[in-house]
Amino acid sequence: MNIKMIRFILAKMLGVEAVLLLLPAFVGVLYGEMREAVSFIAPALVLALIYIFMGRKKPEAPSIYGKDGMIIVASAWVLWSLFGAVPFTVSGSIPSYLDAFFEMVSGFTTTGSSILKDVEALPWSMLFWRSFSHWVGGMGVLVFVMMLTTLDKKNSMYLMRAEVPGPEKDKLVPKTMSTARILYGMYFGMTVLEIILLVVGGMNLFDSLIHAFGTAGTGGFSNYAASVGHFNSAYIDGVISVFMILFGVNFNLYFFLLIGEAKAVWKNEELKAYLGIIALSTVLITININGQYPNPLKAFRYAVFQVASIITTTGYATTDYNVWPMFSQCVLILLMVIGASASSTGGGIKVSRVMIVFKSIKQELKRLVHPQSVSIIRINGKKMSPDILKNVYMYLMAYAGITVLSILLVSLDNKDFATTFSSVMATLNNIGPGIAGVGPAGSFADFSVLSKLVFCFDMLAGRLEIFPFLMLLTAFSWRKRF
Amino acid sequence: MNIKMIRFILAKMLGVEAVLLLLPAFVGVLYGEMREAVSFIAPALVLALIYIFMGRKKPEAPSIYGKDGMIIVASAWVLWSLFGAVPFTVSGSIPSYLDAFFEMVSGFTTTGSSILKDVEALPWSMLFWRSFSHWVGGMGVLVFVMMLTTLDKKNSMYLMRAEVPGPEKDKLVPKTMSTARILYGMYFGMTVLEIILLVVGGMNLFDSLIHAFGTAGTGGFSNYAASVGHFNSAYIDGVISVFMILFGVNFNLYFFLLIGEAKAVWKNEELKAYLGIIALSTVLITININGQYPNPLKAFRYAVFQVASIITTTGYATTDYNVWPMFSQCVLILLMVIGASASSTGGGIKVSRVMIVFKSIKQELKRLVHPQSVSIIRINGKKMSPDILKNVYMYLMAYAGITVLSILLVSLDNKDFATTFSSVMATLNNIGPGIAGVGPAGSFADFSVLSKLVFCFDMLAGRLEIFPFLMLLTAFSWRKRF
Repeated sequence: MNIKMIRFILAKMLGVEAVLLLLPAFVGVLYGEMREAVSFIAPALVLALIYIFMGRKKPEAPSIYGKDGMIIVASAWVLWSLFGAVPFTVSGSIPSYLDAFFEMVSGFTTTGSSILKDVEALPWSMLFWRSFSHWVGGMGVLVFVMMLTTLDKKNSMYLMRAEVPGPEKDKLVPKTMSTARILYGMYFGMTVLEIILLVVGGMNLFDSLIHAFGTAGTGGFSNYAASVGHFNSAYIDGVISVFMILFGVNFNLYFFLLIGEAKAVWKNEELKAYLGIIALSTVLITININGQYPNPLKAFRYAVFQVASIITTTGYATTDYNVWPMFSQCVLILLMVIGASASSTGGGIKVSRVMIVFKSIKQELKRLVHPQSVSIIRINGKKMSPDILKNVYMYLMAYAGITVLSILLVSLDNKDFATTFSSVMATLNNIGPGIAGVGPAGSFADFSVLSKLVFCFDMLAGRLEIFPFLMLLTAFSWRKRF
Repeated sequence: MNIKMIRFILAKMLGVEAVLLLLPAFVGVLYGEMREAVSFIAPALVLALIYIFMGRKKPEAPSIYGKDGMIIVASAWVLWSLFGAVPFTVSGSIPSYLDAFFEMVSGFTTTGSSILKDVEALPWSMLFWRSFSHWVGGMGVLVFVMMLTTLDKKNSMYLMRAEVPGPEKDKLVPKTMSTARILYGMYFGMTVLEIILLVVGGMNLFDSLIHAFGTAGTGGFSNYAASVGHFNSAYIDGVISVFMILFGVNFNLYFFLLIGEAKAVWKNEELKAYLGIIALSTVLITININGQYPNPLKAFRYAVFQVASIITTTGYATTDYNVWPMFSQCVLILLMVIGASASSTGGGIKVSRVMIVFKSIKQELKRLVHPQSVSIIRINGKKMSPDILKNVYMYLMAYAGITVLSILLVSLDNKDFATTFSSVMATLNNIGPGIAGVGPAGSFADFSVLSKLVFCFDMLAGRLEIFPFLMLLTAFSWRKRF
């Protein structure tokens, strides 16, 4: 383990966060929130000092390996959240530092769960910072840093591999820095387009920024208690629905579109499955909830928004789906688990992993019928190597293990089963709201300290696909062996 | 696919069921229930005719393979349940044939879920048949038939492999018929011992038979609405607790004890883990529920009984754990999933599979730290082959898939989430009761036809560890290819 290099990269990262903190400080100044502006600048100065003392001189042995990459990525997310939470508490906006940390983890991991009971009381600069963290976290804080600073090729690869979600990570990574710039370029462009469309629809610029950040990062923080339902506009619902779906697509596909390889996009199995699941779920829910709405069109509008919001793990709401029939709620819970596409900004276990599971089971049945048959699993016509398959199985089992353990710990709060179960699902899959007590109208404020820590762990483990975070936790036990 | 041989073995099996049906007929005569006795004898005659016409002349090509074995086992369980349900409906005890089928599937699969709202109103002979089905199903209906009739070695192996639960199935199977006799011998002996101990404790012979059948098969049918709580006796709770735990142990270990290899028993990792989980869960629940009982001893008595009942997937209850804190309920739900040991009469995913999952995740973490390390997973010091590991992963993913699909279908009944979720868990893992609406005081009577069919599927798929049953369902699609 290259401790010096880990420290160096982390200090560099904190320097970047110092710069980012100046943005909400600027928003604070704009809106005359001087106390809040100062509470952003103070931690920014501390971070700048850390950068100056530890992040400028590159160590003599700059090589890192896969495990170092994981440790760096996991530590970076924790540190960014720890420092990013400071302004909330210093300014008094969120008096409890644990709550502020929860809110920040929820922001960077693009979860969107909130401990706030009255979000509308928050100052403008705080609302901005909270939502901006979605936007940075969506594409990845490491990827963001890589876009701005130079790291050598191999080091970047290990970092990107630990941060970009999905079962296969080798397609884009070798290009690293230029790739990071192209990714963020597309990401930036799409976000700007959404802001324009929202403003055209009559939303003011601040609200448009907040909701575009939340959509792009598939985060889900809103500055209104009623979430997107506040605007009560079919146009805005439509724009946000479409953009949520777009941000849940594998970004590699946009890259292919950009270089003119549209064929690769149409042939992509994950895209077809992703859109198919959205279509099927929307139809089923529309039929199921139809009786609760004046006409099928209105039922469809709410169904497609909630489906898009949950499968992409955004978590915006235009209605309280707690009043929907249990079937629709169960479909939404299933979508929570499935999640968006690999290499998108969304969470969950990812459509491609679900596809691998289905193909594996089908293959197993085939093998039982024809014991001599060769078992090959293909995605997009490409053979999945045994290593990738094993990684998927391991990921899923670790995912199930963390789910079970989290539910047990949260159940100590003695809330009802639907709240207990769905609060873990909503955080581990980076959705935001769950059902029952943590539904769109609920809040995570009333959980115990232990439960809040469990949720923070789940949000981080979910965003980083478990293993980097498990590595960090066990790092101290294996460090001495190096 | 050897259709002739499949038909031959199935006809033989139905002949055995004909004989079994005479037992409750005899009980009916004893208690003066003539109408009920006749309703057992009538289907017995039909089954005898089927045996005479199709199960006596062995086909000229007697070889079967793995897939035929699976088809036979899955079909046998369905047919036994279909015919075993007839007396309930013919006699009028359970007017709906679907409900009677549900009850019978629940019996043979040793689930113990019931559609009865007033079990105490059932005639003696019906109560006996229902509970006797637990006893036969516990060790396996095919194993039972193999004990009575002769099949050649290879054929028996395929059948046993499809019916005996657990990730590794090769230890006992080569010995087949004699093995079947030894297994049933031990099973019979332990059941008789339990009956004696219950009678000594003041239970009458009929109740002792019923509850010993339910314990041995880890089924859980009682002839009292309050289940074992009816007796309100610490002695009886204790005896049944101990025997539930004993019947949840891998029967191979009793076999080792019998031949004097006690060392293999003490070194068995699954046994240690199984007893460890029971001890830990009991302690945690005792602490958690302590406030609800007059003294810790009483809390312990209820905790250990419920833990033993759920982990062994028996499903007896001495108290309504729906009033326990959510943590205790979540521990019980987790125990439902874990289940008992491999090659026991219990259900669930089995302790040994859970151990393989944990060791796999640990191995994966180790591999991430030391990429060059060799990954070997050992259980009881024996290396698990990649094939066994792959089978375990496939089983778990199919298990998760069936759980999700079942919950979606059952949610159409629009019951609360805890009822929806736990009813699927309780049937797929062959437990019996769940929590909330299907808790120990609840019933499966009020579900829709679709949900009841889903539960029947889940009970059968759970008992046969999914793949034989999936094979049967898909058999028609691949049959033409042979």
